[in-house]
Amino acid sequence: MSERAVCVIGTGLIGGSLMRAAEKAGRAVWGATASPSTADDATADGFDVTVDTAAALRRAVDTDALVVLAVPLPALAGVLDLVGAHAPTCRLTDAVSVKVAVADLVAERAPHARFVGGHPMAGTSESGWGAGTAELFVDAAWVVASDDGADPQVWADVAELAWDCGARVVPAASDEHDLAVARISHLPHLLAAVLAAVGAEGDELALSLAAGSFADGTRVAGTRPELVLAMCEGNRDALLGAVDSALGRLGAMRGALASTGGLAKTVEAGHEARQRWAAAREPEQLRIRRGTGMAALRDIGRRGAVITGWK
Amino acid sequence: MSERAVCVIGTGLIGGSLMRAAEKAGRAVWGATASPSTADDATADGFDVTVDTAAALRRAVDTDALVVLAVPLPALAGVLDLVGAHAPTCRLTDAVSVKVAVADLVAERAPHARFVGGHPMAGTSESGWGAGTAELFVDAAWVVASDDGADPQVWADVAELAWDCGARVVPAASDEHDLAVARISHLPHLLAAVLAAVGAEGDELALSLAAGSFADGTRVAGTRPELVLAMCEGNRDALLGAVDSALGRLGAMRGALASTGGLAKTVEAGHEARQRWAAAREPEQLRIRRGTGMAALRDIGRRGAVITGWK
Repeated sequence: MSERAVCVIGTGLIGGSLMRAAEKAGRAVWGATASPSTADDATADGFDVTVDTAAALRRAVDTDALVVLAVPLPALAGVLDLVGAHAPTCRLTDAVSVKVAVADLVAERAPHARFVGGHPMAGTSESGWGAGTAELFVDAAWVVASDDGADPQVWADVAELAWDCGARVVPAASDEHDLAVARISHLPHLLAAVLAAVGAEGDELALSLAAGSFADGTRVAGTRPELVLAMCEGNRDALLGAVDSALGRLGAMRGALASTGGLAKTVEAGHEARQRWAAAREPEQLRIRRGTGMAALRDIGRRGAVITGWK
Repeated sequence: MSERAVCVIGTGLIGGSLMRAAEKAGRAVWGATASPSTADDATADGFDVTVDTAAALRRAVDTDALVVLAVPLPALAGVLDLVGAHAPTCRLTDAVSVKVAVADLVAERAPHARFVGGHPMAGTSESGWGAGTAELFVDAAWVVASDDGADPQVWADVAELAWDCGARVVPAASDEHDLAVARISHLPHLLAAVLAAVGAEGDELALSLAAGSFADGTRVAGTRPELVLAMCEGNRDALLGAVDSALGRLGAMRGALASTGGLAKTVEAGHEARQRWAAAREPEQLRIRRGTGMAALRDIGRRGAVITGWK
């Protein structure tokens, strides 16, 4: 769909999958990683991956490539300093799970980059180059930041990369994105951790009886803690609101259980919400005209629709 | 393994699966349901199921069968009145997910029954006769109440039924069982409801982005609310403790997030707990001598072991 080359900084599960998918789509693609062993693994798999991030970025400048930052949030400032030094006005996006904090860092460290944030919402409990696949993003949502003033050419570059990877573009303002993922991605990780800890407070009897509902409810507590922390701690303000909402609901339920013993309100609201979620699994799919304005794009995301290509 | 006939009152997912499994094991088995259409469906499938519960119970008296009550907790009092009237001294067990409340009801409504409580811990999100299978209990935990004073012959009857269904016996005192399931079965349902409701508070954007962690964390919120309510509301006292523990952990996490922004304690405790749970998936399997005392049986359950047959 696009001929633009792709330079991926960070070649873990997300960056590594992105390289494979972009190559499969016929793009020129190269990458950089801080880990020599990862670079060796990627090279052995036939990919052009270096430990010299500056060189990878200079090559992006030479070819007007799209640079994708796919490192965890705690590593981002250092990488952005390299962008500021070696590719200060490049076309730039990212694959980090928070958008306001990333935009703030870009403004501080690489203020002249043509930056449009992104968040491909796919993952597995695995991590690292070896866990990546070209199919990771197929039918997944890929949020493309659609804030007022975003560069429409780079917005199109990011959208075309998402489509080339098989994903569906969901446009959202950076702050709207952060509020949404606090509720539907970060809070689930924290509630899973709480549930796992309460279960393990019981004796071996409780752990031996724990199956279906406990297994599902704690699955993401199996994720590497440093990945969960990078994601959740980077979205502190939005997450506080989601946690307060959960605390309020849990506290109200505790009161009802202690007084009348009735849990109908909690259980029925949860059941209805789950059914609403299930009904939203088949979103409206749209094609848009090139140059559609950011406000119109945000409206598409707000009504739960996804974008699959140009009209 | 045993020749004892089985009379199942309540032929939904659990009772219907139990009838199929017991028949497959070569037992004589019949059942009763309050629903004429369920009786018709079961009869069409070749099973002996009536809507005349009194008649099914009188037949159990005539053959000294084991009576299994597999109705939801809210229907139990009415069924126990029939037991008290038509099979007052029968061998009696149940498949309800709380044990103290059931034992109290039996003491009140059918005080002369030879009752030993049971809880086969298997289920799907489906319900009703049609959802049942003979394999539902294979390798599942089947708690057999092992309170002081329990009738050892009926304990053996219940254990043999569990083994005939392919399950593993986990002995536990009734109150220990209720505390354990509050943490690992009832709390997961309530947290799933809270998570689903918080997610749906967001707009359509949040619902459209919700996938992996949200889908897993809310799965059991898809269960029929009346089933969840019967289970959770019947275990009020034990559940209050589990909810308070979750509230305490969530509140402490909220405080840490608001003050230092750090979530490491919560996330690391959850990760460690999930790993402990994963390590407990392959429990020690024991055979026991007939007549093993209740205190020794409870010790087996407390250390996380399961019983698979007689020595």
